[in-house]
Amino acid sequence: MKQANKTTDPAPVTVLGLGDMGRSLARAFLAAGHPTTVWNRSPGKGEDVVALGAVRAASAEEAVRASGLVVVCLVDYDASDAVLEPLAEALEGRVLVNLTSDTPARSRQTAAWAAKHSLSYLDGAIMVPVDVVGTAEALVFHSGDRAAFAAHEATLKALGEPATYLGEDHGLAAAHDMAMLDFFYGAMGGLVHAFALARAEGIDGASLVPYLNTIAAILPPIAELTAVDVDTRTYGNDGGNLAMMAAGVDHILHTAKDHHLDVSHLAGLKSVTDRAIAEGHGSSSWSSIIEVIAADR
Amino acid sequence: MKQANKTTDPAPVTVLGLGDMGRSLARAFLAAGHPTTVWNRSPGKGEDVVALGAVRAASAEEAVRASGLVVVCLVDYDASDAVLEPLAEALEGRVLVNLTSDTPARSRQTAAWAAKHSLSYLDGAIMVPVDVVGTAEALVFHSGDRAAFAAHEATLKALGEPATYLGEDHGLAAAHDMAMLDFFYGAMGGLVHAFALARAEGIDGASLVPYLNTIAAILPPIAELTAVDVDTRTYGNDGGNLAMMAAGVDHILHTAKDHHLDVSHLAGLKSVTDRAIAEGHGSSSWSSIIEVIAADR
Repeated sequence: MKQANKTTDPAPVTVLGLGDMGRSLARAFLAAGHPTTVWNRSPGKGEDVVALGAVRAASAEEAVRASGLVVVCLVDYDASDAVLEPLAEALEGRVLVNLTSDTPARSRQTAAWAAKHSLSYLDGAIMVPVDVVGTAEALVFHSGDRAAFAAHEATLKALGEPATYLGEDHGLAAAHDMAMLDFFYGAMGGLVHAFALARAEGIDGASLVPYLNTIAAILPPIAELTAVDVDTRTYGNDGGNLAMMAAGVDHILHTAKDHHLDVSHLAGLKSVTDRAIAEGHGSSSWSSIIEVIAADR
Repeated sequence: MKQANKTTDPAPVTVLGLGDMGRSLARAFLAAGHPTTVWNRSPGKGEDVVALGAVRAASAEEAVRASGLVVVCLVDYDASDAVLEPLAEALEGRVLVNLTSDTPARSRQTAAWAAKHSLSYLDGAIMVPVDVVGTAEALVFHSGDRAAFAAHEATLKALGEPATYLGEDHGLAAAHDMAMLDFFYGAMGGLVHAFALARAEGIDGASLVPYLNTIAAILPPIAELTAVDVDTRTYGNDGGNLAMMAAGVDHILHTAKDHHLDVSHLAGLKSVTDRAIAEGHGSSSWSSIIEVIAADR
């Protein structure tokens, strides 16, 4: 704590990896006044952030040694592990923050490597697009070394404020990322399928949008009710039951098949509702499908 | 028009079918002051609406002959066709509104039967739960006979205001219903899967909800961008491209499989993204998957 408050000058920070997201991170640190050192494996990337004041290091090791906080953001953990492994000695006494996107299992694996080398390690997840990083809307998760987060929270806030710390388990940031994307991609699959079905029925996308957005509006209260159901494992229905809703899924499937649309996504869902009903959840709430999805938990 | 304005007294209305939704419709008409006649195939149902002032008819034909506007709401079109077919003569000169939920094809089939008997027919869809019918939040679609809608709009507003008329094609109400539910069930499948994945990672539902709701909040602007993409069939990406997003789907799939979760729904979606990428849409927007979903359109 004392260390974090020692100076009011923005602390130096290093960014390894200058893809779209890495450059966006560097820009956010520069905009907040942090002396920023950058490095990218293949040369020629990141001229834009150098023009904004970033210092390009000649090697990854030189980049690491320039700052007490080292942020890495690469395409996946195969890439970040390859860059980090030779740097264990250089990283000693510094804090490493890995914002690369991958699974919780890979986060925990890299955390185990960091622990072996007694490195301070935070694993994070950036939940917003490149152009939102550094703005008030940015949501960035961190998990792992609590003291490291406390010491560098002021710097990490340059990416999005507040910086969100989720807990000591290094996998938590990626786990929240995965769960949020799981909901997102379910919705995004349904969204495009809805437009395909509407088009087949002679309805254009622009006409459908206001109605789709009435659906989007009811999702937050439904998410709250669903959380109660799944946390208590009681699935009392509030209005609609699973059997009734599964009949709705059937109607959509028939309509989509009549129009020769691909139904892979919906058919996968129907297989889940069919099994849940077969297991006696027909008069329970929709959320009871979790008992089929996570049957051994 | 003249006919609709002839009187300011609430017009009589008949409700055929006294399941949860039919009773809710009758209550809404009664609450708006309409003399309401009700009938249900099996006896004993609807004592509650009779207690509120509804008149129970001894037969479906007697119920139909009691009002100029006849609303039917049954479990599906097999049920509503069975009730309506013997009533063609009794329905002459009246307006029939079918609010039973089924596919657009079934709506058009019943419309063809009505046309054969020269009946005025509206086909509708109730887009809200039973307890929302008759409130300001209620969304009820109507499609088909435009003059019939105009003549009875004032009465239909008792169910939800405004009453929404979508066009002359009798399938339009059900088609909008199907498209909206397509989006809804995609999101609802992803929602419960997200809670299952979070639980497997040690995150409870209540903790996850605020983050899921940041996802719900970005869906309306995404729906608007997607509508432009699909209407113009141009899929320029705004930030994230399909290949990058499909990698996200892969990460979720791996994480879910590691935890032995059912992945039918997600795997169906992945088969769609895989094919879209194989067909050259990797650097297009996510919405380009519509070209695989609706390949022959």
